[in-house]
Amino acid sequence: MKEALKEAEKALVKDEVPIGAVVVWNNKIISRGHNLTETLNDPTAHAEMQALTAASNSFGGKYLDQCTMYVTVEPCPMCAGAMYWAHLGSLVFGATDPKRGFRLISNNILHPKTVITSGILEKECSKLISDFFKKKRS
Amino acid sequence: MKEALKEAEKALVKDEVPIGAVVVWNNKIISRGHNLTETLNDPTAHAEMQALTAASNSFGGKYLDQCTMYVTVEPCPMCAGAMYWAHLGSLVFGATDPKRGFRLISNNILHPKTVITSGILEKECSKLISDFFKKKRS
Repeated sequence: MKEALKEAEKALVKDEVPIGAVVVWNNKIISRGHNLTETLNDPTAHAEMQALTAASNSFGGKYLDQCTMYVTVEPCPMCAGAMYWAHLGSLVFGATDPKRGFRLISNNILHPKTVITSGILEKECSKLISDFFKKKRS
Repeated sequence: MKEALKEAEKALVKDEVPIGAVVVWNNKIISRGHNLTETLNDPTAHAEMQALTAASNSFGGKYLDQCTMYVTVEPCPMCAGAMYWAHLGSLVFGATDPKRGFRLISNNILHPKTVITSGILEKECSKLISDFFKKKRS
């Protein structure tokens, strides 16, 4: 999760909502991503989408059932839907997203075999986001 | 929808699940997409995702609230979640997807302002898919 936080900080430097993700296979990071929706002018350019696409590329297969994604914030329905198609093995996230987290809609957006762990480095992940929006509002 | 069907046929030629999409603004097609998950080895490479990303690019903005997407099959939760972020104005789809359509999970995956129309050229859209899977199975 510390590596996902590093990705989130890369987004912050670009004045993007600071969310970062990494995908791990066999104890190695096989892909990284950070939010680039403003930079790329693309509403789908979330950290998770980029990390998933890059992981499939580096893994040489569409399915990531042996992989774990670490992401600093609870994924939205789009990203959870993408994880479904990737058959993601495990999802670990830091902060919850009470406004647009996938769990607000349904846990069933994820693949039934995906193991979910939440609250890892929650404070750090959450602070990065809340500081960003506080600064935007002021 | 006929243009979306043409996109689906492009997917079929590449031995991809034949789904196609176009985005229309001001009576003009501003983007096109067809399913490329196998070709790109990317589980997120659905027709709708590509059409949305291309539309944002061509439109010069992240928000597509003045646009209509025509897609041959009911979008999955990932694609519906992407349409939420794009604030898509209208969604028109052909065939329903009783296995993985977003409505199985919740209509709330879409943006509350997105107007939904279904069943346009339903038979043609549906036949393309069912013929594809019949052929795969035989």
